[in-house]
Amino acid sequence: MPNHFKEASIDEINQVMQRSHAAFELFQKKSIEEKSIFLDTIANEIEALGDALLQKAAEETNLPIGRLTGERARTTGQLRMFATMLREGSWVEATIDTAIPERTPLPKPDLRKMLIPLGPIVVFGASNFPFAYSTAGGDTASALAAGCPVVVKAHPAHAETSEMVYSAIKKAIAFCNMPADVFQHVHGTSFESGKALVQASHTAAVGFTGSTLGGKALFDYSAQRKNPIPVFSEMGSINPVIFLPDTLQKNTADLAAQYSGSITLGMGQFCTNPGLMLAIDSPALRDFLDHLSTGIETVQPAKMLHQGIHTAYVKKSHDALEQKGVTVVQQATTVAHDIEALPTVALVSGETFLANPLLHEEVFGPYSLMVACQDEDELITVLKSVSGQLTTTVMGTIQDLTDHQQLVETLPSIAGRILFNGVPTGVEVCASMVHGGPYPASTDSRFTAVGINAVKRWIRPVCYQNWPDSLLPLALQDANPLHIWRLVDNEWKK
Amino acid sequence: MPNHFKEASIDEINQVMQRSHAAFELFQKKSIEEKSIFLDTIANEIEALGDALLQKAAEETNLPIGRLTGERARTTGQLRMFATMLREGSWVEATIDTAIPERTPLPKPDLRKMLIPLGPIVVFGASNFPFAYSTAGGDTASALAAGCPVVVKAHPAHAETSEMVYSAIKKAIAFCNMPADVFQHVHGTSFESGKALVQASHTAAVGFTGSTLGGKALFDYSAQRKNPIPVFSEMGSINPVIFLPDTLQKNTADLAAQYSGSITLGMGQFCTNPGLMLAIDSPALRDFLDHLSTGIETVQPAKMLHQGIHTAYVKKSHDALEQKGVTVVQQATTVAHDIEALPTVALVSGETFLANPLLHEEVFGPYSLMVACQDEDELITVLKSVSGQLTTTVMGTIQDLTDHQQLVETLPSIAGRILFNGVPTGVEVCASMVHGGPYPASTDSRFTAVGINAVKRWIRPVCYQNWPDSLLPLALQDANPLHIWRLVDNEWKK
Repeated sequence: MPNHFKEASIDEINQVMQRSHAAFELFQKKSIEEKSIFLDTIANEIEALGDALLQKAAEETNLPIGRLTGERARTTGQLRMFATMLREGSWVEATIDTAIPERTPLPKPDLRKMLIPLGPIVVFGASNFPFAYSTAGGDTASALAAGCPVVVKAHPAHAETSEMVYSAIKKAIAFCNMPADVFQHVHGTSFESGKALVQASHTAAVGFTGSTLGGKALFDYSAQRKNPIPVFSEMGSINPVIFLPDTLQKNTADLAAQYSGSITLGMGQFCTNPGLMLAIDSPALRDFLDHLSTGIETVQPAKMLHQGIHTAYVKKSHDALEQKGVTVVQQATTVAHDIEALPTVALVSGETFLANPLLHEEVFGPYSLMVACQDEDELITVLKSVSGQLTTTVMGTIQDLTDHQQLVETLPSIAGRILFNGVPTGVEVCASMVHGGPYPASTDSRFTAVGINAVKRWIRPVCYQNWPDSLLPLALQDANPLHIWRLVDNEWKK
Repeated sequence: MPNHFKEASIDEINQVMQRSHAAFELFQKKSIEEKSIFLDTIANEIEALGDALLQKAAEETNLPIGRLTGERARTTGQLRMFATMLREGSWVEATIDTAIPERTPLPKPDLRKMLIPLGPIVVFGASNFPFAYSTAGGDTASALAAGCPVVVKAHPAHAETSEMVYSAIKKAIAFCNMPADVFQHVHGTSFESGKALVQASHTAAVGFTGSTLGGKALFDYSAQRKNPIPVFSEMGSINPVIFLPDTLQKNTADLAAQYSGSITLGMGQFCTNPGLMLAIDSPALRDFLDHLSTGIETVQPAKMLHQGIHTAYVKKSHDALEQKGVTVVQQATTVAHDIEALPTVALVSGETFLANPLLHEEVFGPYSLMVACQDEDELITVLKSVSGQLTTTVMGTIQDLTDHQQLVETLPSIAGRILFNGVPTGVEVCASMVHGGPYPASTDSRFTAVGINAVKRWIRPVCYQNWPDSLLPLALQDANPLHIWRLVDNEWKK
C-alpha cells in the first residue's frame, strides 16, 4: 500500500532511535504529575481534532463514522486510564525488605525494588484499529506511561490519519514542555524499515499488532540482534466458540442471532472474530446452522479496510472452501462491489478438520468455519489441535458445563481469555482484561496488550541495596511520600 | 566433562517431555495446600540426606563443606519460601472487574483475571551452585510453585549430587502422592540434548544459569521453534564497582579489605563477582591498589569447580593480562597446584579499556580489573560502555554521591541491582531481590531468577469473562474463599 509519505531510510531510522534514546534520559526526570498531564493532554488534543480526524480515518479505512467515534473514545479513555494509573502509583510494585543488621551468620541488607522503564519503544500500529491500536493507541499509551519514549511506524493504510494523531501528540509535547523526541513518527512500507527499527541499537522493545507473518518477522529480527530485546507481537487468532448440546437445543435462534452478528461485525476485521465454531453434530446443530445461515444472508456487505486485506480474504476464504469435505453453509448471494466482503459460513467434520492444517489458518474477514464433531472426545481433540488463541468461548447452560467438565477444564490452556455465553468480539479496557495468549496469539503469553497491565511489557525491576533514603526514588523512600501500596517485609501496606 | 551416566537420546527426551505434559494436567488438580506440603517435603527430604549429600557435592565441585552447608540451607529455605507464597496466595494477582449490565451503549461484562502455570519447564542447573541453582534450586522451586512440572538436566560436573537430590524429590513425590512425572531428571553433556529439551513440542519454558554462550544457544534454539517459548537465561556479568574519591581517600584500607575478600570469595566463582572496578585516578587510588594487592596476596589459592573452568580461567586471565596497556597489580605468587586458581588484580586506563572489547569480557574466577579514569566524564563513558549487568555498586560517602549525581543517575540503566557501600557477592533471597538484568546479564531483564517474583517467569494471565461463580477458580470467586489480596474494581481488597 503505497502512500505519498517519504519512506524513512535506514540512516534516518538510526538517527530517530538515537534521538529517542536522548529523550529517554530527559523524560525520566519528569514527575509523575507531569507525565499524567501529558497523557491527559494527548487525549484532549486528539478530541480537539474533531470530526476532521474521523472523516480522514473513514476515508482511509472504510470504517463507518459510528465505529470510529467509539474507537476514538476508547483511545482517549486508554490514555486517561494510564494517567490515572500513574497517579495511583502501585503499578511500580514497590517492595521493601528492611535490614536486619544483627542477623547471623551474615547481616541482612536493606533491599528495595521497583519497576523502571526499559527505554525507547518502537510501535507498529494495526490496520484495523486506526486509533486504538495505532499512533496513540494502547502500545503508545502504555509505553509513555511506563516512562519510555515511543517511535511509531505509521501504518501505510492510514498514514494520513496517523499524521493527524501525531500532530495532536506534538501539540501535547509542546504544551506540557516534554522533550520533543519523546514521541517520533516515521513512515515505511518495506520489511527493511521494520527490520531497521527493531535492530537499531537504541531500541529497547517492540510492540506490534497484525499478521502472524509480520509479527514473527519482527520477533526474528530481534533474535538476530547482538542483544535480543522483547518483542510483543499480537498476531493471529481464530477464537474457537464451542456450542454445547443443551443450549443448542434450547436457544437455537438466539445463539444464531448473536453469532451472525459477531461473525460479521466490522466485516469480521477483528483479531477476536469467531473464525471457528465447534459442536457435537445433532439435529439441533443443523437447525442452528439454518438460523445462522438466514442471519448471515441478511448482512449487508461492506467495504473492507483496504485492497490488500480484501484480496487476502477472497483468496483465503476461497482456498478454505475448496478443501475436500468443506461445504458452504451460507455465502451472501448479493453481488459484492469493489472491495466489499461476502460474509461466509462453512461446515466440516471433526475428522476432516483434524487432517487438514489449512483449515486451522485464520481467514481474516467475515468468515467462520463450523466443525461438527462426533462426540465430546473428538471435540476436545479438535480444540487441543488448534494453536494458541486470544479467546475461547463456551456457549452453554449450567447443565452443559456440568456434563462437559473435561472440556471446560481444557479451555485455559488454549487462550488468554475464556468467555461464557457471550461473543469474543468487543475487548473491554480494564485491569482484568487479557489480550494476548499462547503463541501465535502473541509472542509472549505472559503479557497483555490491553488494560493497565499492558504497561508491564515495557518495565523491568531494579533493586536498590543499602541505598541512602534521600537518594531513593520516591516510591521506595521510608516515608512513602507517594502514599502507594507497597509490600513491606512481606506485608501489603499503604 | 564426561561422567558415567547415560546420555539421554533425542527420543528419550521427547518421551520425558510427553510424560511431563501428562503430569501437568494431573498436577493442576492438586490443591494449594497439597502443593505447599510437597515443596516443604522436598526440603525435608534434602535435609534427610544429611552429610552424605554435602560430602558428595564437595567431592564433585571442590567447594568447602561450610559453603555447601550454607547453600543447602538457602535451597531448602527457597523451597519453604515458595510454599509460604502459595499459602499466602496473592502471587496469582487476582483482579476482578464486576459487570455493569446497565452501561450504555454496551453493557460491561464481568471480567476476572489470575495467573496460571505455563506448562512443563526445563531447567539447566549451574556448575557453581550444585544446590541453590541446580536440581532443586530456585528455578525448580519457583516452577513447581507455579504449578508447572519440571525436567532438570543434571549439570555434568555434579551429576551424582544431582542424582541424590533427585532421590529426595522422588521420595517427596511418593510421600505427597504427586504425579510421578511432576519432576524428571535427565543426563546429557551435548549441545544436542540441550537443543532437544528446548525444542520438544511440550516444553513450555526454560530456565538456565551459566555462560553467555550456553544461555544464548538455548535462546536461539527457542527462537527457531515453530512456536517460540520463553527462555530465561541468567548469564555473564562483570559487576562494575565504582570507588568514588572521597571514600577512597578516607577508607582506603577498609575498602581494600572488603574487596580482596569479595573478589576471591569462593575463588571468584559467583555470577556476582566484582570483575570490574572503576575509579578516577589519584594517589588515593594507587594507595588503595597497594592495600588491595596485599589483601589478595594473602588469599590461599583453592581448587576451582572443575578442570574446564580452571582451564578457561587460566586462558582468559592470561589473555586479558597480555593486552596492551594492562598491568598486573597483584597475582598470587604461591605456586598453584592442580586446578587451583591464582587470584589476580589488574589495572588499565579508561582510554585503553574503551578501545579494547576483550577487556569487557567476563573472566570467571578470582580476577578483577581496575579501570583508572581521567575524570568523572570518562568514568561515566566507561560505565555506559559495558553491557547489561546483574549488579553495579557504588562505594562512596554521602558527599561523593552529591558530587557525582550524574554518575549515580546512570546506574539503574546498567543493572538489575545497584548497591551502595557493599559487595555484590551474596544474593539475599527475598521479595525485593532482583537477580537478572539487561542482556547479557539475562535474556529478559523483566524477570528475576531469585526471590518470590522468580515465579513470574512461569505463569501467564488468563481472563474469565461472565463465568459462573461456582466454576471459577477459588482465587476469583465472589466470596474470596482463599482470603487473598485482590484488585476489585480498581481497589485492593482482602
